[in-house]
Amino acid sequence: MVIVIQCTDKVGLVATIAGLLQQKELNIVSMREHVDSIQNRFYARVEISKTIDATVLEAQLKGVLPLDAEVIVNPNPVKKIIVFATKEYHCLSDILIRNHFNTLGASVLCVVGNHSHLQDICRRFDMPFHLVSHEEITKEAFEEQLYRTISGYEVDYIILAKFMRILSPWFVEKYTLQIINIHHSFLPAFIGANPYKQAYERGVKLIGATAHFVTNNLDEGPIIAQQIIPVNHSYTTKDMVKAGKEIETAVLANALQLVFDDKVLVYQNKTVVFE
Amino acid sequence: MVIVIQCTDKVGLVATIAGLLQQKELNIVSMREHVDSIQNRFYARVEISKTIDATVLEAQLKGVLPLDAEVIVNPNPVKKIIVFATKEYHCLSDILIRNHFNTLGASVLCVVGNHSHLQDICRRFDMPFHLVSHEEITKEAFEEQLYRTISGYEVDYIILAKFMRILSPWFVEKYTLQIINIHHSFLPAFIGANPYKQAYERGVKLIGATAHFVTNNLDEGPIIAQQIIPVNHSYTTKDMVKAGKEIETAVLANALQLVFDDKVLVYQNKTVVFE
Amino acid sequence: MVIVIQCTDKVGLVATIAGLLQQKELNIVSMREHVDSIQNRFYARVEISKTIDATVLEAQLKGVLPLDAEVIVNPNPVKKIIVFATKEYHCLSDILIRNHFNTLGASVLCVVGNHSHLQDICRRFDMPFHLVSHEEITKEAFEEQLYRTISGYEVDYIILAKFMRILSPWFVEKYTLQIINIHHSFLPAFIGANPYKQAYERGVKLIGATAHFVTNNLDEGPIIAQQIIPVNHSYTTKDMVKAGKEIETAVLANALQLVFDDKVLVYQNKTVVFE
Amino acid sequence: MVIVIQCTDKVGLVATIAGLLQQKELNIVSMREHVDSIQNRFYARVEISKTIDATVLEAQLKGVLPLDAEVIVNPNPVKKIIVFATKEYHCLSDILIRNHFNTLGASVLCVVGNHSHLQDICRRFDMPFHLVSHEEITKEAFEEQLYRTISGYEVDYIILAKFMRILSPWFVEKYTLQIINIHHSFLPAFIGANPYKQAYERGVKLIGATAHFVTNNLDEGPIIAQQIIPVNHSYTTKDMVKAGKEIETAVLANALQLVFDDKVLVYQNKTVVFE
Repeated sequence: MVIVIQCTDKVGLVATIAGLLQQKELNIVSMREHVDSIQNRFYARVEISKTIDATVLEAQLKGVLPLDAEVIVNPNPVKKIIVFATKEYHCLSDILIRNHFNTLGASVLCVVGNHSHLQDICRRFDMPFHLVSHEEITKEAFEEQLYRTISGYEVDYIILAKFMRILSPWFVEKYTLQIINIHHSFLPAFIGANPYKQAYERGVKLIGATAHFVTNNLDEGPIIAQQIIPVNHSYTTKDMVKAGKEIETAVLANALQLVFDDKVLVYQNKTVVFE
Repeated sequence: MVIVIQCTDKVGLVATIAGLLQQKELNIVSMREHVDSIQNRFYARVEISKTIDATVLEAQLKGVLPLDAEVIVNPNPVKKIIVFATKEYHCLSDILIRNHFNTLGASVLCVVGNHSHLQDICRRFDMPFHLVSHEEITKEAFEEQLYRTISGYEVDYIILAKFMRILSPWFVEKYTLQIINIHHSFLPAFIGANPYKQAYERGVKLIGATAHFVTNNLDEGPIIAQQIIPVNHSYTTKDMVKAGKEIETAVLANALQLVFDDKVLVYQNKTVVFE
Repeated sequence: MVIVIQCTDKVGLVATIAGLLQQKELNIVSMREHVDSIQNRFYARVEISKTIDATVLEAQLKGVLPLDAEVIVNPNPVKKIIVFATKEYHCLSDILIRNHFNTLGASVLCVVGNHSHLQDICRRFDMPFHLVSHEEITKEAFEEQLYRTISGYEVDYIILAKFMRILSPWFVEKYTLQIINIHHSFLPAFIGANPYKQAYERGVKLIGATAHFVTNNLDEGPIIAQQIIPVNHSYTTKDMVKAGKEIETAVLANALQLVFDDKVLVYQNKTVVFE
Repeated sequence: MVIVIQCTDKVGLVATIAGLLQQKELNIVSMREHVDSIQNRFYARVEISKTIDATVLEAQLKGVLPLDAEVIVNPNPVKKIIVFATKEYHCLSDILIRNHFNTLGASVLCVVGNHSHLQDICRRFDMPFHLVSHEEITKEAFEEQLYRTISGYEVDYIILAKFMRILSPWFVEKYTLQIINIHHSFLPAFIGANPYKQAYERGVKLIGATAHFVTNNLDEGPIIAQQIIPVNHSYTTKDMVKAGKEIETAVLANALQLVFDDKVLVYQNKTVVFE
């Protein structure tokens, strides 16, 4: 069972938390604590060996911690997620396979696509697929339809698995810190259209990818995980796109595992990742 | 200030430690705790923001923890080390440079060599160099002379920076868990003479290195850090030796930093590394 | 179009090859050449920009090269493969996904399993699955049945995607240098049963995987690719198995891409990989 | 002996080169060829086993190759270099150590510093150190003094080993493609002052470094090598600076080895690296 806590820092927080757990005869199997002294912020993740009533423990912890404490006890061990995708198969397929064999650490409720390209792969896994086209309607109408499509689901996270539309602030705010995106980010970062072409022209020796929470500035939210893959002069733009897909798949899988294991705490624009 | 603790596990240890620190108005900046449930062993590393009397705090912690608790408070922030080397310069030079610019996290007291090859580089850094030749004497006499050479120093760690002699149990026991070795270990591991020639003949695509504490089975002690470097078909045995030196230097530097920062706890044949 | 050549080395081989290509007005887009001076062996891989009659060019090259030259011109750009698997899904699923979206660089003809566990995932991709049980029959009978099952297919490579049976020499010889295996290999390598348990007990900080051609000594054939993944003290044996699966999937995918792109040349027990 | 060639591409270049070498009974030990089909540019690197008169062979190759061909035969096997540095020791020390033990693949002629901080470490290696202060003089006067200081040396490369001054175009043009810089570049790249502070605030999980040739846009020249090092939430800005130094040292060492081994060809703003 996992306990995740963040609040304003002060002396004695670990003692307070550990004292309460001791009273309840709960053994701490693993504990990670971090204080960001610039933000004066306390972060902790505690694993205990027994499973007890989460609501009660959560209330008890809130009772002894500072008023601004965010306490999550035993978050759904299997998270419920929805995946948004467009045409590219690589990230979605990896998620579908892990979901199918129960190793994702989450359960995929459905997939939403703004094109029909990925409908077939979903069908093969008996996964509900909702086609919500952005064509011939306004962005607002598109997002309202997106929202109507998923609002009936009780969802922990929305995964943008190469979803090639930028979501409006009103949509993002409906799911604060619940939307995770995978972004092709390069060294040096290339802004604007066709980043792989820019990377090719610059002659970079590494390309990378970044998984992050979506906030109102797309590609600017708190970073969960980043990795790179080496490339060289023999790579065409097309080869770089291909290598980029491999690293996007790997980084998103890694980030999702961290999030689903409740190892990622977010405050303002940064994450604390208790790997 | 750092506190490092290990003992038999039981419910309430974190509460006990954190409670004592709270009483003393000490704020925990960072805490890592791990319980090995198979060994039933508790490991913790705590960083606190203030600097207080270490001896008093250590005694107080021992007073409230289980009898078998090993508690180290504020270990010498700058460790004192002696380096043993033979002919190869790469690991020793890296240590000498970092020592010279005060970024090693330790202070090198002297270097001991069983050949004179590295005397000159030590002289350039005003570093005492003791030549203790193993030639024309028995192993026992050699090691006794080694021991006499260093026994006058108050030393925290002895670093075998490519020291090509195997130390006898009696010597190792004088410095239990204080001797750190860097070992060329391959994938798959090659035993016996000339491992790089074997690696070349096997056509491996990776070579690696392992930094570990020395116990009575050389190359079998608790592992601190391991890394690899890719190689390919164009590497001759000589090229592999060269690549091996690069990775040996990097792994040893990494392992020493972890040890000198008191991030490595050892129990039986394994380490807990709170990176 | 790709040309792959290996033969005994002698002066003038590149001139001979390039001269013939020039006569035919073929431009060399990329050329990799390597001489193993210990084996006195010449290896080359040439990419040319035009597509011409492979049989004619192959005969012409053989006509001007040493008698022992192995020349392959324009090997099937899409290789035909059969996958053998047992119960673990990770490597097979990755292959099935890439095959389904035509990015594998090969076409999967069928899957053979000695258990029925992976029949369902194959069915979902309309992939023929042949169940050949090893139970209640001799090893010889099992392998004869395996052979009968696949002998009707014209196959370039057999991929052992976590196939947990050791194939007999007679079977391996039927498919010389056509069988590729993925092996969990550790640092240091652990022999015998339960390598992950051994790795856990040894406290390694890295685990690895090796993709190799199968020869009569299983796990001893020419290595194609190797990679590692870091682990730490918090990993249980089960966590190591999980991390091992991630790296096995990645290494096998990488090795297959190299083989399918005709970038891997084999001679005796080693590979030349023109990445 | 190494031959490096680049020119406009056309059919038959490999045959022309290899034919000439065959006539001279020279065996090609290793050959890398690459055609950039967008630039229509041919690049080759050939290693031959014998050592012969470089001037003669160079002239002969130029005689048979296109007029724009750049041919370098047997470039000084030991390159002559000058190192520019400011206050940071890490890159310079690594170069001095390798130079001292004759494993750099180049010979350091002298070090030029615009501060006196690194004079002592040079003295310890009997390395000439020229102090050229930029203080209290114009940039132009500073660079003229720099130029006067080094113009007497016959130099192959100038290494900016954390030299914190931007060189003017006139200076850079004196040493076209002979100046190599190591740059802290991040993911995403941070422009302007204090990149590590920006990286800290952005909460990146990787920091990187780039070694590149200096052209008139500092930090924009052809990239030779790039690598990254993982960081996490526990890194302060100071820790990031420290990690950055480790990766800067490693990337520069790697890039220099590639350049000194004549494995890096440059055309316009990109490199071909025949690793």
